[in-house]
Amino acid sequence: MICPIVKLASKLISIPSISPNDNGCQNILIHKLKKIGFTIEKINKNTTNNFWAYRGTGKTLTFLGHTDVVPPGEILQWNTDPFNPTIKNNRLYGRGSADMKGSIAAMIIAVERFISKNSNYNGRISFIITSDEESKATHGTIKVVKKLILRNEKIDYCIIGEPTSNTVLGDTLKNGRRGSLTGEIRIFGKQGHVAYPDLAENPIHKSLLFLHELTCIKWDNGNQYFDKTNLEIVTITSGNKINNMIPGEILIICNIRFNTETTVKSIKLKILNLLNKFNLKNTIIWTLSGLPFLTKNGILINIVRKSIKKYSCKNPKTSTSGGTSDGRFIALMKPEIVELGLINKTIHKINEYTEISDLKLLTLIYENIIEQVLL
Amino acid sequence: MICPIVKLASKLISIPSISPNDNGCQNILIHKLKKIGFTIEKINKNTTNNFWAYRGTGKTLTFLGHTDVVPPGEILQWNTDPFNPTIKNNRLYGRGSADMKGSIAAMIIAVERFISKNSNYNGRISFIITSDEESKATHGTIKVVKKLILRNEKIDYCIIGEPTSNTVLGDTLKNGRRGSLTGEIRIFGKQGHVAYPDLAENPIHKSLLFLHELTCIKWDNGNQYFDKTNLEIVTITSGNKINNMIPGEILIICNIRFNTETTVKSIKLKILNLLNKFNLKNTIIWTLSGLPFLTKNGILINIVRKSIKKYSCKNPKTSTSGGTSDGRFIALMKPEIVELGLINKTIHKINEYTEISDLKLLTLIYENIIEQVLL
Repeated sequence: MICPIVKLASKLISIPSISPNDNGCQNILIHKLKKIGFTIEKINKNTTNNFWAYRGTGKTLTFLGHTDVVPPGEILQWNTDPFNPTIKNNRLYGRGSADMKGSIAAMIIAVERFISKNSNYNGRISFIITSDEESKATHGTIKVVKKLILRNEKIDYCIIGEPTSNTVLGDTLKNGRRGSLTGEIRIFGKQGHVAYPDLAENPIHKSLLFLHELTCIKWDNGNQYFDKTNLEIVTITSGNKINNMIPGEILIICNIRFNTETTVKSIKLKILNLLNKFNLKNTIIWTLSGLPFLTKNGILINIVRKSIKKYSCKNPKTSTSGGTSDGRFIALMKPEIVELGLINKTIHKINEYTEISDLKLLTLIYENIIEQVLL
Repeated sequence: MICPIVKLASKLISIPSISPNDNGCQNILIHKLKKIGFTIEKINKNTTNNFWAYRGTGKTLTFLGHTDVVPPGEILQWNTDPFNPTIKNNRLYGRGSADMKGSIAAMIIAVERFISKNSNYNGRISFIITSDEESKATHGTIKVVKKLILRNEKIDYCIIGEPTSNTVLGDTLKNGRRGSLTGEIRIFGKQGHVAYPDLAENPIHKSLLFLHELTCIKWDNGNQYFDKTNLEIVTITSGNKINNMIPGEILIICNIRFNTETTVKSIKLKILNLLNKFNLKNTIIWTLSGLPFLTKNGILINIVRKSIKKYSCKNPKTSTSGGTSDGRFIALMKPEIVELGLINKTIHKINEYTEISDLKLLTLIYENIIEQVLL
């Protein structure tokens, strides 16, 4: 008999739910959760599907996940069809197997098993599932969280199924993430023919020392939880690729990943002051993708460590590195947050897979966490 | 009776010969030249039309011109149809009226008049006409010049009909042009996710001080004929406008307008040394659009000055400023070169026009130059 975790993961993988399209994944989960007594609230926005599900009352443990996946890339480079889940050498191949349909299957099966053994427990189990994590994340978890906050829902503990493991399941869990701020800076000069530089003002030439100093700013020294805040110029462009025109403006996009030592306000101020120092005519559009969040040592981290040690890795590390996650949104409800999921080696890549043994271990770990929190 | 210069200019303007398409302009000129005894040699290359025409033997005076025009831009912004030549307030409006179908009409009529008065003269009158001056200029005058050099043709004096006048017809003539060298520099880093800067190498950050020093190089101090050599970074681009990726490479296009004090070799060497100083992995594609050329005081300049003084401006200035012209190609045949044409105020712009009185004056000046050279 095929393992129910692999079966569910495979069913999800077979649906090409390229972000932000859910394409029916969530209905499969909802169907299963309803069968074990969950109340479901669909919170769809535009093309994004989200749902909030809960069973029980009181102290709340929430599983957070996403059914959307990144595009498969060049399908011909895959050894198997990315949307035809394939088992080979004890691995389950397919887009989303590790990020994070495998984790979602593990969550659901862990909850099913827990409830079948403990139909009465102290507290509440809940799910927040979205189909907009891999794209803009503007209509996903944030919308659910805002709705829950409006009606004073509380979440005490949150497990996010992102693939945090590096080489052994559970070797790394994340207890925070840096914030992310993007600035689209336009610097203006005066367009003109390259043969008449005195009649023009080259915005590239004017910007170079400013940009150099921008990359040299020391924002902070990090702290025991976080790396230093870092700025990268990710885009610079002056438009036309013609060789006889001095451009009229230049666009610079910089992205700042910042920790709890640095504020959005202070970042903006430093950049504005630097623009002023160099007397640069400019406009800036700021986009804040998320504030940093951090769960210091607390109940949930200790529980998760214990569960990991029991079933998998002896020395799980905590980390706040890497990109943003939907943790930045759930953090607004101030639960203890731990991210724990499958091995991330193949995520977003050709031939994404997860070890089937890891799917089983992760289910055991999730179930053990529920037991520790709610029994 | 309509003036034959205006008539010919209008006929040419009515043909939308957007570079490098001649669309029949040259056949009109050829027809007229044949009638007054010229021998014609068509030297077409790909979509470009060129011809070489001559009458007489010996000391040679060549008129150089182009029948192609730049695109009209937004036609709705014109007060008249750019390809429907229109006379208003003693001006002839239309694309190419000043650059340089008006000058071509003046050349042809001047030669017609001269020959009708002096069917025997000492020397040779010739024309080089191209339809590829405003675009890449790769199949235009350079092709004619190479062919003429191969068979040892000599040109002693060359008048180029480019619109050199600023406010009064003949106030400025050009006796040289700077050279133009373009470098497409790619600087390589290592692409990566912006959340993991240690695994990437940002080519933008690495390039900034190099680029700043590049813009600070003192190439030379110019000389009595030429402005200082100048470099402009005309393009900088790192490609994708996404905020979470450190780009793998950056493209910088710089264009150097250089005078006779600086060589192509020395420019390349300085830039390569600077790239090495900053240890930047790079590739460069160089494109030499033209070497600088200069006609110091000589027979032709004195003749042209005299003709201008006789009919128009008392104090014509000589200049080497501005963009390149086809003079860079004819210079390979080492004639004395002078560029003299209509007022450049409206060239390449909406509502391009020439004063009809200037067309008439320019024809008189050209005819007088021919007389001075060949009688």
